[in-house]
Amino acid sequence: MATAPNVPHRVAVFREAHFNAAHRLYRPDWSQEQNQAVFGLCNNPNWHGHNYKLIVKVIGPIDPETGYVMDLKVLKDLIAAEVTDRFDHKNLNLDVPDFAGLNPTAENIVVVIYQRLRAALSPSLDLHVRLYETDRNFVEYPAE
Amino acid sequence: MATAPNVPHRVAVFREAHFNAAHRLYRPDWSQEQNQAVFGLCNNPNWHGHNYKLIVKVIGPIDPETGYVMDLKVLKDLIAAEVTDRFDHKNLNLDVPDFAGLNPTAENIVVVIYQRLRAALSPSLDLHVRLYETDRNFVEYPAE
Amino acid sequence: MATAPNVPHRVAVFREAHFNAAHRLYRPDWSQEQNQAVFGLCNNPNWHGHNYKLIVKVIGPIDPETGYVMDLKVLKDLIAAEVTDRFDHKNLNLDVPDFAGLNPTAENIVVVIYQRLRAALSPSLDLHVRLYETDRNFVEYPAE
Amino acid sequence: MATAPNVPHRVAVFREAHFNAAHRLYRPDWSQEQNQAVFGLCNNPNWHGHNYKLIVKVIGPIDPETGYVMDLKVLKDLIAAEVTDRFDHKNLNLDVPDFAGLNPTAENIVVVIYQRLRAALSPSLDLHVRLYETDRNFVEYPAE
Amino acid sequence: MATAPNVPHRVAVFREAHFNAAHRLYRPDWSQEQNQAVFGLCNNPNWHGHNYKLIVKVIGPIDPETGYVMDLKVLKDLIAAEVTDRFDHKNLNLDVPDFAGLNPTAENIVVVIYQRLRAALSPSLDLHVRLYETDRNFVEYPAE
Amino acid sequence: MATAPNVPHRVAVFREAHFNAAHRLYRPDWSQEQNQAVFGLCNNPNWHGHNYKLIVKVIGPIDPETGYVMDLKVLKDLIAAEVTDRFDHKNLNLDVPDFAGLNPTAENIVVVIYQRLRAALSPSLDLHVRLYETDRNFVEYPAE
Repeated sequence: MATAPNVPHRVAVFREAHFNAAHRLYRPDWSQEQNQAVFGLCNNPNWHGHNYKLIVKVIGPIDPETGYVMDLKVLKDLIAAEVTDRFDHKNLNLDVPDFAGLNPTAENIVVVIYQRLRAALSPSLDLHVRLYETDRNFVEYPAE
Repeated sequence: MATAPNVPHRVAVFREAHFNAAHRLYRPDWSQEQNQAVFGLCNNPNWHGHNYKLIVKVIGPIDPETGYVMDLKVLKDLIAAEVTDRFDHKNLNLDVPDFAGLNPTAENIVVVIYQRLRAALSPSLDLHVRLYETDRNFVEYPAE
Repeated sequence: MATAPNVPHRVAVFREAHFNAAHRLYRPDWSQEQNQAVFGLCNNPNWHGHNYKLIVKVIGPIDPETGYVMDLKVLKDLIAAEVTDRFDHKNLNLDVPDFAGLNPTAENIVVVIYQRLRAALSPSLDLHVRLYETDRNFVEYPAE
Repeated sequence: MATAPNVPHRVAVFREAHFNAAHRLYRPDWSQEQNQAVFGLCNNPNWHGHNYKLIVKVIGPIDPETGYVMDLKVLKDLIAAEVTDRFDHKNLNLDVPDFAGLNPTAENIVVVIYQRLRAALSPSLDLHVRLYETDRNFVEYPAE
Repeated sequence: MATAPNVPHRVAVFREAHFNAAHRLYRPDWSQEQNQAVFGLCNNPNWHGHNYKLIVKVIGPIDPETGYVMDLKVLKDLIAAEVTDRFDHKNLNLDVPDFAGLNPTAENIVVVIYQRLRAALSPSLDLHVRLYETDRNFVEYPAE
Repeated sequence: MATAPNVPHRVAVFREAHFNAAHRLYRPDWSQEQNQAVFGLCNNPNWHGHNYKLIVKVIGPIDPETGYVMDLKVLKDLIAAEVTDRFDHKNLNLDVPDFAGLNPTAENIVVVIYQRLRAALSPSLDLHVRLYETDRNFVEYPAE
């Protein structure tokens, strides 16, 4: 492996994952009229749901020993442990403590996912998270 | 338009639509243990949800006047009126009367959608419906 | 190759291709008002256009010599010669003689493509053609 | 569940799966020249590979007890046991006994997969298999 | 909502939209030979067309009241008013004043779209636009 | 073309390409046990393979003469000459000299592709490369 570069290249590696969940957008301290005006259909008191698609991006140097930034199998398992096993087939408002007191908009969900993964990843690695609520609506944090 | 064929060709036209909904798979006449054994994660009492994707296929002769089997704008509006306006951002079990007493599995949903569209379409047109619950799980009725 | 089946299996092989074209839906023997009422936005006299996606399906027995129904490279070249080289970056109404006197609806286009490919393929092979005008609007001929 | 239909509807259920494998198209009883002429780039003696995508379609009546044709979790596990655990990250020619003496063209692979799944599924269920070798080249068996 | 962060997180929100249009690449001050040499098939005097796909990215702080960066329904309506209602089913060269004297390459189109949206959005929000001319050819402005 | 901006806008243009290849992840200076522990299924001595998808991003000013950053036909040909003609239907370890002594992980492949394209492109243009090994696993260099 003599030809590996002396200064490791910094590469971004991405892993896609999925979870299916119910949610409702509303503030308990607002009236139903106010919630309806702001959140519209997303305020259905009986919930609605989505197939969320998650793309996790980790940036770091290529390990000259392995040619990996990190083993994507490890990243896959970490995403499962921190995110999809907790969120999949759940009601985000009722079943997931991260959203107690936090409206589960796509924006808030992506920040929660980032914080969970950030705490579990080596600080030497950079992290970005993209979350698709539908094919046409998605979010990214931190914003680039 | 003299070159249009004398015997109209039969063509299938397809229109894709989407709705996002919450549901729960269970039978109220079964114990929670039995529901859990059969439906697993899909039996979450607090609901979960999906981005459903629908593909409606209509077969008929090309109208020699217009070159259309049917105006896809008409089909789009019909799908909205019969299906997506009723199902989108809803809880299928609680909000949609079609599923009162009917477990909202993908199989049962696709049959309900077929029946709604069948009643609204000209009997001279054939109809098939495909429904994606996720990218990897989908159903079709009638089975071909 | 002794284990190849004695009776060749009939398999469908598919090849996807693309072309980008301009068109206008209208009948020259109709008034502008009538064309507008029936074809709406698609009747823009200055044309509009699409990225058409084509999926060609050929059914036949597996050749026990090669394991192929037909060489997909041959099918690819045939689709280019008969369809995409003639239609790509063209105005279907003005540049493609197949649509002289024939309204280039998706339905009529798919039949024209079928007829071109049918004439070029061995009669022992079955043929079906699917044409996407957009991701959400598509057609198939012959209808199955 | 009194409203379930008296005569169960026949529905098709689909499950998508994936495997990544190496292969080479050639006949050991042919000269290298003949193999090159027929199989071209696919005859590379050092192998090449694909991300194969598999769509399994099972047709049967909706079980009025569950609303399922079959539990897609069961179908997922069956596809893993019969196909993807055996084919994934393998050399189809060297590592998979099904292709001893059988050229691993997409056509032959889809028939092998069909036969494996057919033997494992209830005879009361109909089966079709689609296999993508690339996004633009795919096959289906039995041909419909 | 006591647990919302004190310093709002900056998140990117994305909305996808579509329009179908005809265009021609050429310079009226060049000879047909020069236009053909530079723009090739794209210089067809009878026009050709595309299904353009647009992804609009808006970056800003999460509003602690709503959990939104901005209501995506508002962004959707703004994209329709500023872009897709003006460009869809149009000839970009002839029907859209923005391209009077400006060659409608993907690069120029994406800048025009950016400028329209930039003028309509709050200056406190950052904006990026991606435009797909085909699945394989796309552009982004500002370049990141 | 009087309305083209005085200061050219910097735009990113993207071109997608594909190649299908076999590879094996391992270090010849490690034992088979160590290779298996680190690279798992990817260490199959008989190889496995992928449909690699490549997205090349080039950033530069819009040429006011043409409206192009660069002719995407030129970029397409350059990607073919530098990358896909060399990698497609090949064994990356055995057939491609770039990987002599370099483990063909996605990370190392994307750096090799970047270096090939970087040397062939005008220094005035910025370059980024994204490489999909599967739909769910991909890499980017330089990391942004």
